[in-house]
Amino acid sequence: MQNKQVLINSLPEGKLEESNYKLVESDMPQVKTDEVLVKTLSFAITAGTRAGLQGSASYAGAPKTGIVMNCTGIGEIIESNDSNFPVGRNVLTQTGWQEYSIQKPESLTLLREAIDPSLYLGPLGINGLTAYFGLLDVGQPQPGETVMISAAAGSVGHMVGQIAKIQGCNVVGVCGSDEKCKRLIEDLGFDAAVNYKDANFRQNLKEATPKGVDVYFDNTGGMILGSALFRLNSGGRIACCGVVSQYDTSTPEPGPKGIPGLLVNKSIRMQGFLVFDYAERYEEATDNLIGWIESGKLKVLTDELDGLDQAPQGFVDLLAGGNIGTRIVNIK
Amino acid sequence: MQNKQVLINSLPEGKLEESNYKLVESDMPQVKTDEVLVKTLSFAITAGTRAGLQGSASYAGAPKTGIVMNCTGIGEIIESNDSNFPVGRNVLTQTGWQEYSIQKPESLTLLREAIDPSLYLGPLGINGLTAYFGLLDVGQPQPGETVMISAAAGSVGHMVGQIAKIQGCNVVGVCGSDEKCKRLIEDLGFDAAVNYKDANFRQNLKEATPKGVDVYFDNTGGMILGSALFRLNSGGRIACCGVVSQYDTSTPEPGPKGIPGLLVNKSIRMQGFLVFDYAERYEEATDNLIGWIESGKLKVLTDELDGLDQAPQGFVDLLAGGNIGTRIVNIK
Repeated sequence: MQNKQVLINSLPEGKLEESNYKLVESDMPQVKTDEVLVKTLSFAITAGTRAGLQGSASYAGAPKTGIVMNCTGIGEIIESNDSNFPVGRNVLTQTGWQEYSIQKPESLTLLREAIDPSLYLGPLGINGLTAYFGLLDVGQPQPGETVMISAAAGSVGHMVGQIAKIQGCNVVGVCGSDEKCKRLIEDLGFDAAVNYKDANFRQNLKEATPKGVDVYFDNTGGMILGSALFRLNSGGRIACCGVVSQYDTSTPEPGPKGIPGLLVNKSIRMQGFLVFDYAERYEEATDNLIGWIESGKLKVLTDELDGLDQAPQGFVDLLAGGNIGTRIVNIK
Repeated sequence: MQNKQVLINSLPEGKLEESNYKLVESDMPQVKTDEVLVKTLSFAITAGTRAGLQGSASYAGAPKTGIVMNCTGIGEIIESNDSNFPVGRNVLTQTGWQEYSIQKPESLTLLREAIDPSLYLGPLGINGLTAYFGLLDVGQPQPGETVMISAAAGSVGHMVGQIAKIQGCNVVGVCGSDEKCKRLIEDLGFDAAVNYKDANFRQNLKEATPKGVDVYFDNTGGMILGSALFRLNSGGRIACCGVVSQYDTSTPEPGPKGIPGLLVNKSIRMQGFLVFDYAERYEEATDNLIGWIESGKLKVLTDELDGLDQAPQGFVDLLAGGNIGTRIVNIK
């Protein structure tokens, strides 16, 4: 038996390309004392992992080649030396882009058995928890306030908007196509959506936010952040979740002109966060998210690909804005 | 009797020049019902008012010419139609650069009679209150943490550093000359000070902050903010107080490269504020500041000029970094 893996073959110069990855077959890993062997069922492709391939080190550490591409996935335990993680149970873990992985117990989260496992790659996984804590704890939206979200059709953004609606907010999404705008409004109940690729983006954003913006959930940085700064009201809050506009390049842009001047003039709070900061409260969030899904208030958008070999092109396409919702790769 | 005034003669293109102002004599203003006539004793020149002369509107509104230059000052009531503000009492108000001004009662703060009035232009005025709330409420320093301050020898900065020392912090100032660095350490008890004009600034800052930076009190924006972002620890806070590096120009720079990427990776909170946000708590702050001054823990640095006609050149020089502490103009 062999283990199929996708390795980082080279670090991207400029935009990521499929050729930055390499599909290999290697020997099956051997399980040691206290370790667990996990067979990957599915994994999520998320924009944030692109930052780990940039020249400067991110929170994930300095980029390396020759290693398996990292990602969050779900898998089945097929061999175990830890009685808390029995064979047959499904887990959420950093599977990487590969069929089999060796895991330490502390890196595994057992999936609740009554719940569709695929939800753990979307609303109950890193993406959903990021949306939950970033909006509610960092953004602190109040009923009636206007919440603006960039990459609003993405894996995090589409959930942020719905959670903001549940809080009684007016919700405006920014995304990269008219088709995505339509789905945000018609399928997910956003109040408005604006295509940032439109030549009249700034004017359209202004019209979509007649009362200004109270909370801006920023997945992109760059030009959209710059535009949001001008729409933010005094006392506004920016939850800095990601910088997708600056990931797929070797030469990130400078920050927007209004930093820090507009922050001062409008008493704006801009706060970066990592979902891991909230690890102690994952259970609370998961309970709320399950409740919202079961009551139909939170709809889950996924976008599925089949086969490990689809991952590299699926990631290139995602960085170009080709997906709606959470992009998931299923492995047979 | 005539009123001497300094008017904004033209808006600066590029750096501010003395010729952007004009000294005029005008008729004495007439006091109407409910108004008060104030004779200016002294006023403070502060970098923030430069923002009001820039092309885009600041919190102070769009820039205009032909009006008296704005500033905070202290004065004596010499005619009054409001019994709460009797003739002979001293007040803090927006005197402007002029000898006499008409004021509405709601814009006046009576000075406590036992206190040296000049303290109201420094520690007990806008500068001191800004230092107090910006550091304690926005920055939230904890004992043992490292606090970094830009424009550390300025009217706000030199008080921030001393208040941080009172909180038990390690305090590192950034300023524009070796002479200022020396005074911050020797006269005010800063733990370290770094000259940003030194070619080795980034390396010197690194050596002055061996445990990183927990709170950065930003008076400058620009390159120093960019350098601070790299020294900030996870969970760090930036109190955005002013943008002095970008005031004296018609073409403000873009924001630092690490915005918002480094905010995300290090869960940094960056918060703009205006002292007016804390108006309800001025009494509390004033009590604490007086206590620290009386006990010798808070030293006041002022830098005095004599005569209204000194104000324009005094402001040009201040923007070039020529002052230490609060620059005050006394009027005979």
